[in-house]
Amino acid sequence: MDNRAIGVFDSGLGGLTVLKEINKYLPNEDTIYFGDTARVPYGSRSKETIIKYTFQAINFLASQNVKAIVIACNTASARALLEAREEYDIPIMGVIEAGARTAVYSTRNKVVGVIGTTATVRSKAYNKAIKAKDSGIRVIGKACPIFVPLVEEGWSNKEISTMAAHMYLDSLVEKGIDSLVLGCTHYPILKRTIGEVVGKDVKLINPAKETALDLKDVLEKRDMMNDSDQKGSCKYFVSDINEQFSKVASEFLKKKIKNENLEKVEIHKY
Amino acid sequence: MDNRAIGVFDSGLGGLTVLKEINKYLPNEDTIYFGDTARVPYGSRSKETIIKYTFQAINFLASQNVKAIVIACNTASARALLEAREEYDIPIMGVIEAGARTAVYSTRNKVVGVIGTTATVRSKAYNKAIKAKDSGIRVIGKACPIFVPLVEEGWSNKEISTMAAHMYLDSLVEKGIDSLVLGCTHYPILKRTIGEVVGKDVKLINPAKETALDLKDVLEKRDMMNDSDQKGSCKYFVSDINEQFSKVASEFLKKKIKNENLEKVEIHKY
Repeated sequence: MDNRAIGVFDSGLGGLTVLKEINKYLPNEDTIYFGDTARVPYGSRSKETIIKYTFQAINFLASQNVKAIVIACNTASARALLEAREEYDIPIMGVIEAGARTAVYSTRNKVVGVIGTTATVRSKAYNKAIKAKDSGIRVIGKACPIFVPLVEEGWSNKEISTMAAHMYLDSLVEKGIDSLVLGCTHYPILKRTIGEVVGKDVKLINPAKETALDLKDVLEKRDMMNDSDQKGSCKYFVSDINEQFSKVASEFLKKKIKNENLEKVEIHKY
Repeated sequence: MDNRAIGVFDSGLGGLTVLKEINKYLPNEDTIYFGDTARVPYGSRSKETIIKYTFQAINFLASQNVKAIVIACNTASARALLEAREEYDIPIMGVIEAGARTAVYSTRNKVVGVIGTTATVRSKAYNKAIKAKDSGIRVIGKACPIFVPLVEEGWSNKEISTMAAHMYLDSLVEKGIDSLVLGCTHYPILKRTIGEVVGKDVKLINPAKETALDLKDVLEKRDMMNDSDQKGSCKYFVSDINEQFSKVASEFLKKKIKNENLEKVEIHKY
């Protein structure tokens, strides 16, 4: 048994969708979330910078004495997970392995689409993870940099999002994908729009849920579950708090964050 | 005479449009550009964080022994210029005063629109600067957060940009603006699309050119012009260099940046 908290890291607030799944499937675990809101988004930054920022986040979460860390951000998982596992002893999970595994289970015709930030798609991390399980699967990646700002503007269900989705996704549908990995924590918010554009024959895969189940598995196998029967606590740390913070956070988390559970971190010092 | 370089600071690469105007109107001046590409964009960050990042940029440029600094970023000008002028002795100019003055000259019916990032519009910096010159002018601000990602995606002239422009600007046109300040360095790239949406009776104001002319004026008055008759040199510093850097930079600057003139800075150390 290990009653320390689980650390969850994201470049911003999108990772709250992953935290929500962890709270659902591991309800007795305490969690500590860190969102790097002073430096979000990571999706267009160099690999070197993404690794530096990710290590600082891990250093901060480690200073909070967490027992395991989930990198909820696809970009950071794609660019920095291997490096982080080499550098740190604490168990660290990304979101890509779970998403890749689900895609392998899902596809019938062995043509899988993966959408994400420019950095995630360029990294080919999903391609490698999928092909490691089944080298016969064709993986087609497509960066969709407009999707995150559309979600953050609150335009997910407007016609402009449908137009953007057509611009990015029509070519994937033409290439015959039957499964599409939503490889960025913001994209599940666009699920309805994306689903309408790609059609009901394409299965949408959200790695958040599978990541939470993987985490449960890891903790059980290592005998690191929290043995409390109380609902776990959540603490939230961010590197910047702007005026829209509460609105955006509650949209992702589907609940309000109380001020006493929210704290700002000078992340560049870690 | 003062033959030191002029420092130009922006949150990213958009400020290269301002640098281009400075190079045009002050061709014999050396310039040093710093773009905070590891932490761009500033438009959704808190005032406190924008001030911190701006001071670090000024500290860096001051360490390069510049004689004056232009804050080319509207967000940083709106949120941090007054604080910077209090903190530093070196002449520091923003882009807002020049844009505001041009708007005051331009408007006939005294209804002016201002578009920019969320932080710029919330700051009401343009409103204050315009009303200080003519309190009878009505200023209507509108944040357009999707415009920057549309430009960076290379979609400036596509139908989706026209749709976004209608969503943001139709209400300004209905309110009767006859002048519209492009209060973000990225927006001039969208000039054609914006112009078509607001119609030819609305004058578009780009503060970059006026800022360069203001700078010339300041240097002349203080007897700080470079007395060389050679074309000035340009050095470029950024806090991150990703794969798309050269492409995006040359789009804004309309010329290539040579590798030997480009250097990466660890900006959080300043």
